[in-house]
Amino acid sequence: MNKLVECIPNVSEGRRKNIIEALRDEIISVKGIKLLDYSSDIDHNRSVFTFVGSPEKVLEAAYKLACKSVELIDLNKHKGEHPRIGAIDVIPFVSIKDVTMNECVLLAIGLGRRLGENLNLPVYLYEEAASAPHRRNLSDIRRGEFEGLNEKMKNSEWKPDFGPEKPHPTAGATVVGTRVPLIAFNVNLDTKDVGIAKMIARAIREKDFGFPYVKALGLKLKDKGLTQVSMNLTNYKVTPVYKVFDKIVELAKEKGVRVVESELIGLIPIDAISQIVSHYIKLPDFKSDRILEYKIFKD
Amino acid sequence: MNKLVECIPNVSEGRRKNIIEALRDEIISVKGIKLLDYSSDIDHNRSVFTFVGSPEKVLEAAYKLACKSVELIDLNKHKGEHPRIGAIDVIPFVSIKDVTMNECVLLAIGLGRRLGENLNLPVYLYEEAASAPHRRNLSDIRRGEFEGLNEKMKNSEWKPDFGPEKPHPTAGATVVGTRVPLIAFNVNLDTKDVGIAKMIARAIREKDFGFPYVKALGLKLKDKGLTQVSMNLTNYKVTPVYKVFDKIVELAKEKGVRVVESELIGLIPIDAISQIVSHYIKLPDFKSDRILEYKIFKD
Repeated sequence: MNKLVECIPNVSEGRRKNIIEALRDEIISVKGIKLLDYSSDIDHNRSVFTFVGSPEKVLEAAYKLACKSVELIDLNKHKGEHPRIGAIDVIPFVSIKDVTMNECVLLAIGLGRRLGENLNLPVYLYEEAASAPHRRNLSDIRRGEFEGLNEKMKNSEWKPDFGPEKPHPTAGATVVGTRVPLIAFNVNLDTKDVGIAKMIARAIREKDFGFPYVKALGLKLKDKGLTQVSMNLTNYKVTPVYKVFDKIVELAKEKGVRVVESELIGLIPIDAISQIVSHYIKLPDFKSDRILEYKIFKD
Repeated sequence: MNKLVECIPNVSEGRRKNIIEALRDEIISVKGIKLLDYSSDIDHNRSVFTFVGSPEKVLEAAYKLACKSVELIDLNKHKGEHPRIGAIDVIPFVSIKDVTMNECVLLAIGLGRRLGENLNLPVYLYEEAASAPHRRNLSDIRRGEFEGLNEKMKNSEWKPDFGPEKPHPTAGATVVGTRVPLIAFNVNLDTKDVGIAKMIARAIREKDFGFPYVKALGLKLKDKGLTQVSMNLTNYKVTPVYKVFDKIVELAKEKGVRVVESELIGLIPIDAISQIVSHYIKLPDFKSDRILEYKIFKD
C-alpha cells in the first residue's frame, strides 16, 4: 500500500513572479511532497500547482500554501479574466493510488476545518465533498465572485461549511473538495471577436445542453490578440478531449475562424492521452498499457 | 543505477497457440524479466515478444527463447506474408534506462556468439551492431528470405558474423542487433486490391525516396478481406507516426479508398505518443512529462 493523493490548488496570482515562487516554496518545503507542475497565466492572473504525496503530507502542504496565499494576496487589488472568490481560490483533492473517494472527502473536510478555524477564512466544500446538492458545482459557489461575496453570504443558502459567515477582508473565501481528475484545456481562436468564443463556449458546455461534464467560457486574450475557449473537462471518460476539440474546430470554421493552438493547464491523465491517440490514428483498442514507459513503471 | 534493456524478438510462428505459449514460457522462466507484451499475427504467421530487464537477464531470456524456437519451428513448413530468414528471425536490443548504445552492442555480440557456437545457427549483426555498412539494414540481410538463404550465403559478402557458413536446415539464420526504439505500425485499407497498398507503401518508404526511417510493405489480409500498409518506423523523432498516417489517408483517398483502422504491434514509446497528441489537438509544446502518471512514476 502506497497511498497517493494529488492536490491541484488554484491561486489568484499569475503575474508577480516573487509571490508565485514564495507560494511554490511553501509546497516543496514539505518533505515527501512531489511538485509535478506549476503554471501561471497572465491574462487569467492565476496559478495552478499540482503536487502529489501521502494524504497526510498533501494536507500539510495545502495548508501551508493556503496560509501563505492569505498572507500575500489581496483580492481587492486583483484583476483577471478567470472568475475567483478567494486568494487561495480552490483546493481540489484527487485520488491517484490506493485511496478511496471517502478518504479524499475526509481530507477535504479536515483541511476545510483548519482553514476556517485557524485563518478565519470561510470555506465551501464542493463536488464529492459538498454538504448540499446546490454546492456541488464550483461555478455556482463562485458566481458573483469576490466582489459579490459579501452580499451572497447574507443568504442562508450560502452559509459556509467552516469559518466565519462573512468574507475574509483580503482573501475572500476558499472552495475545498474532492473530484475525479479534471483536464483544464483551452483552445485559442484567431479572432479578436470575443462573441465568437462565447458562442462556441455556450454550444459545447453542459449548462447550455452541450457535452456532459464540460465547463466552458469565452475569454479575451489581450496579450496575444486572440480569443479563447477556456474549458474544464470534468469527466474525460464521458466526454473526451478530441470530441470537444473537433467540435470547436468545426464551429469556428462556420464563422470563418481558425484554431491557432491549444493549451493544457497542469497535467493530463494518461488514459485521456490514449483516447486522443486512439481516435486520430484509428487504433480502436488502444490502451495506456501499450505505452512502453507506462507499462514498465506502473507496477 | 538501475540498468534496463528492452528486447523485442520476432519469431516465425503466429498460428499455433501451444508453440507460442511454450516460447513465452521460456522468457518468463527467467527471474527478473518482465514480459511487457506479446502478440501474434495469423496472416504474417509471426509473433513479437517484448520484455525488459537487466542486461544479463535479458541476454539469458533471449538465449532461452532462441533455443526453444530452433527446437520447435521448422521454416521449411512456414508460410506467411512477412519476410523472414529464420525460426527466431530477429532479436533487437534497445536501451531503456542507464545503458549506453555501446553496452547494447556488446550484448548483441555476446548473444550472437552464443547462438552461433551453441546452436549452430548463422547470425548476422545489424543496425548499430552491424560489422559492415551493407549489413546495417534488416531488409537487406533478409532479402531472398529463408528459401534463398543457401544461395545467398555462398556470396562472401553474406558470410555470417557467427556460426556456420550455411543455413541451419530448419531454423535458417538469425539477425541480432541494437537499435533505437522502433514502432511497428500497420494501416488497413478498405480494398482487396493489394496494388493500392503496394503503391502507397512505395510512396512513403525511404527506399523509394519517401519519408526517412520508414520501411513499408503492401500486403493482403486474407482473413479480413482487406489490404494493409505494414510499416516499421525506425526513428519516430525524424518521421512521426502522424505524418505517415496522414499521408496514407491522403493517398488512399486519391484512389477512392478508406482507411479502416490501424494496428500497433508491441509497444510504443511515450514520446511518440506525445508527438501524436501535440499534432492533432494543436498543443505545440506538449511533452511526455505533462502526463500525470508518467510524471509521478518516472523517477
